[in-house]
Amino acid sequence: MPQPDGSSMRVAFQGEHGAFSQEAAHKLVGSEAQTLPFRKFDEMFEAVSSGNAEAAMAPIENSLAGSVHQNYDLMMEHDLTIVGETYLRIVHNLIAAPGVALSDVRRVYSHPVALAQCGKFFRANKQIEAEPAYDTAGSVRMVLESGSRADAAIAGRLAASHYGGAILAEGIEDNAENFTRFLLLTRPTSIGLIPAPPETAARKTSLVFRVANTPGVLYKALAAFALRDVDLCKIESRPIEGRPWEYSFYLDFAGDQEDPSVNRAIAHLAEMAESVRVLGSYPSASY
Amino acid sequence: MPQPDGSSMRVAFQGEHGAFSQEAAHKLVGSEAQTLPFRKFDEMFEAVSSGNAEAAMAPIENSLAGSVHQNYDLMMEHDLTIVGETYLRIVHNLIAAPGVALSDVRRVYSHPVALAQCGKFFRANKQIEAEPAYDTAGSVRMVLESGSRADAAIAGRLAASHYGGAILAEGIEDNAENFTRFLLLTRPTSIGLIPAPPETAARKTSLVFRVANTPGVLYKALAAFALRDVDLCKIESRPIEGRPWEYSFYLDFAGDQEDPSVNRAIAHLAEMAESVRVLGSYPSASY
Repeated sequence: MPQPDGSSMRVAFQGEHGAFSQEAAHKLVGSEAQTLPFRKFDEMFEAVSSGNAEAAMAPIENSLAGSVHQNYDLMMEHDLTIVGETYLRIVHNLIAAPGVALSDVRRVYSHPVALAQCGKFFRANKQIEAEPAYDTAGSVRMVLESGSRADAAIAGRLAASHYGGAILAEGIEDNAENFTRFLLLTRPTSIGLIPAPPETAARKTSLVFRVANTPGVLYKALAAFALRDVDLCKIESRPIEGRPWEYSFYLDFAGDQEDPSVNRAIAHLAEMAESVRVLGSYPSASY
Repeated sequence: MPQPDGSSMRVAFQGEHGAFSQEAAHKLVGSEAQTLPFRKFDEMFEAVSSGNAEAAMAPIENSLAGSVHQNYDLMMEHDLTIVGETYLRIVHNLIAAPGVALSDVRRVYSHPVALAQCGKFFRANKQIEAEPAYDTAGSVRMVLESGSRADAAIAGRLAASHYGGAILAEGIEDNAENFTRFLLLTRPTSIGLIPAPPETAARKTSLVFRVANTPGVLYKALAAFALRDVDLCKIESRPIEGRPWEYSFYLDFAGDQEDPSVNRAIAHLAEMAESVRVLGSYPSASY
């Protein structure tokens, strides 16, 4: 019988073993949780919808690169609920086979976003070529399997330890204010499996809504929250297929959907909107 | 002496000859304009900032894929002004060497977004593999140079005619409501070179602002426009480097910055904002 201690949960993540998403899953759900790697975000969502995993750990925003728009679209397509969030400080390390020196390295593989976040390192090491690859942890695996002493990868600490790589340089990202926010998503029927948060944790709610394209409509929609002092954390817009220049708006705000003021704000929004869907209320994490 | 008829303008675009951006440049500036291809968006912006081109034609949003976030960030980094917009209906065609039949084709190359927009075609032609490539028009050039009869590309009509390809199948995109909006950007000192719009054209203005992260601040910012019936067309947020979970907001709205109500709305916004930068007022196009 599955127990709500995380031990029997299968948490899907995108990337290979050692990915930042896997680290985020263990941080939020516990080290006992079983983590399942998927090559693509849509396969990860599909695994949860079809019951092959209890939850997915989806990166939703990086403080430098911005929103992960594909995961916003996938939340719309799948009937999953957000049950938690967590933040990771993204530390990029240069990782190679044990015994390799920085002066040996000629090519560094990683995800294009990670390469772009280490611009100073590449400018200071002109002999090294940046090579885009499928993901950060997968680059470490590939470099170590190849046995090449001229190749290295950029990834997190977990990837180095998972594949037995050595860290040649630590924290080579340009900007230390580099955080990724992750959301834990589950089927509504699996909510009981998620470890309960501390009673004292502040709550946060996410929803998505659509409004007809009429003058001032976004202002009026935000009024439902502002007039009740419900504090907005984030707004994101995504296009609606087949309706050019109309958008779905995603909001994150402080409070639980059962709080009276939040509840009334959502009801007020529903008066104006074509559709409102609450994506979940969950314990607010800090970064 | 450069004349404002478009003939002496060098318009930078991203991609190879035959790209949708090149088609957009000729549509807005005229067939006489000289168009200069650049491999990357940042090189295209740099060419205009440094005076190697008079203007850049930047795709800013696709009605299915959403905003081109890199170009929002590049508008912030460069001191250019938006002087025009245009829309293109994106029609994807299957293009191969003359004489090739659909039954010969085994691999189809194109930009990943174009491949994703032709899902039905690939499901109906299981013998064909979709191969991601650097861009649409560049895929046509590559396929025709290779001489292979098993290879084809997905791109616009202009790419087929530019490289002498034959169109095997026309309009293979899943969704006909597929439009891209492009912005024409120039140095403030080059505005006189841009062909004047018809006097009757409605105007549109774009700006970017930052506000301190205080409760209700976005609602108050939008009030500056809503209370004056200035109609918002688009809002987009982008992260601020070094300030996690704070954003620059980009707005597009109806009217010219010299219109009294628009002018007052911008002044009102400036009272609340840390910074406001008008990116330009320009003739509004329809799609």
